[in-house]
Amino acid sequence: MSEYIAPLQRLIEQFRRLDGIGGKTAARLAFSLLSLDEESVAEFADAVIGAKRDIHTCPECGNLSTGGLCDVCSSESRDRGVICVVEDARDVMAMERVRDYNGMYHVLGGSVSPLDSKRSQLNIPRLLERVGSGEVREVIIATNPTVEGEATAMYIAKLLEKYDVEISRLAYGIPVGGDLEYADEVTLHRAIEGRRTFGKKHGSN
Amino acid sequence: MSEYIAPLQRLIEQFRRLDGIGGKTAARLAFSLLSLDEESVAEFADAVIGAKRDIHTCPECGNLSTGGLCDVCSSESRDRGVICVVEDARDVMAMERVRDYNGMYHVLGGSVSPLDSKRSQLNIPRLLERVGSGEVREVIIATNPTVEGEATAMYIAKLLEKYDVEISRLAYGIPVGGDLEYADEVTLHRAIEGRRTFGKKHGSN
Repeated sequence: MSEYIAPLQRLIEQFRRLDGIGGKTAARLAFSLLSLDEESVAEFADAVIGAKRDIHTCPECGNLSTGGLCDVCSSESRDRGVICVVEDARDVMAMERVRDYNGMYHVLGGSVSPLDSKRSQLNIPRLLERVGSGEVREVIIATNPTVEGEATAMYIAKLLEKYDVEISRLAYGIPVGGDLEYADEVTLHRAIEGRRTFGKKHGSN
Repeated sequence: MSEYIAPLQRLIEQFRRLDGIGGKTAARLAFSLLSLDEESVAEFADAVIGAKRDIHTCPECGNLSTGGLCDVCSSESRDRGVICVVEDARDVMAMERVRDYNGMYHVLGGSVSPLDSKRSQLNIPRLLERVGSGEVREVIIATNPTVEGEATAMYIAKLLEKYDVEISRLAYGIPVGGDLEYADEVTLHRAIEGRRTFGKKHGSN
């Protein structure tokens, strides 16, 4: 006899397909779901189906939308002269949480390693079209600070060279609230490299 | 504009209802689910609905079953003279993983604090019926080593006093592979109290 009865085993296996969920957590989640009443479980399943059915990608920037342009692209109040290039839609949300940025986004849908040939799967042609339209002044490349993100940033920067736009990259450095002692050498190196003169206002270099 | 688009927000809220899932994990799980193809998402939703629909509790012991008696209660090869009383169905699975125990189970469906009046919600009347049937020689109380589990154990032990059965409790002590230095005082106290003479065979007291 298997450890779990069949419908439970099946549910646990489904949870295991999700990112970062191992066997024990999957079992905990399955039991937790089972402890909800029938109506709540139906709501849960409905939300799962509904999300997949109703969430699309914005044809302009690749961000998540419920159909047609996303909230950012359809907003009248955003600065169409700046495009922030990110790896995925979660990064858009991280940027939006800061409430500091009022430009547009472009979601690549991933990153590529230097040796990878999957570049064609990234949403890059549409980015070039947007930049080529002449409306854009600056492209901020905000791919992740990883080897792949860095390679992707370099690759995009190279492609954008021929356009008349400013290209920038998010600053590297020690995270706020972090401890210098525990910062890795590469980060610390970048923090020294990118140091700013005291007294100068932020951004006035 | 809310941080997430509506169908995504709804999915994240559903994940947050599960045990031990906070906002960040719920968002990660929701995105992870969205990244699956349509068929996989349908399978996921189907497993959710199917589990709730097909999993019932065994009328004999309260363990999970797919209808009628559970695998343990319907097995011919188990010892009906011993009942292990546990808080919930997960504990049955934990005991079964040991492959050491060949008796029956009784799932209480929770535990009660000493001051709690919710005792009536526990699956205790059926336990007394089973013990009263005369077939049972020993009841092993395997509620969790918590205040509530302990209170529940005492309460049940008291109720079982009038029956002619042996009542035992799982041994307390330092966990195997644990470090004495980090054992809490109560556990260590119980480990000293329950110490065994070297050379005596396990169980021959």
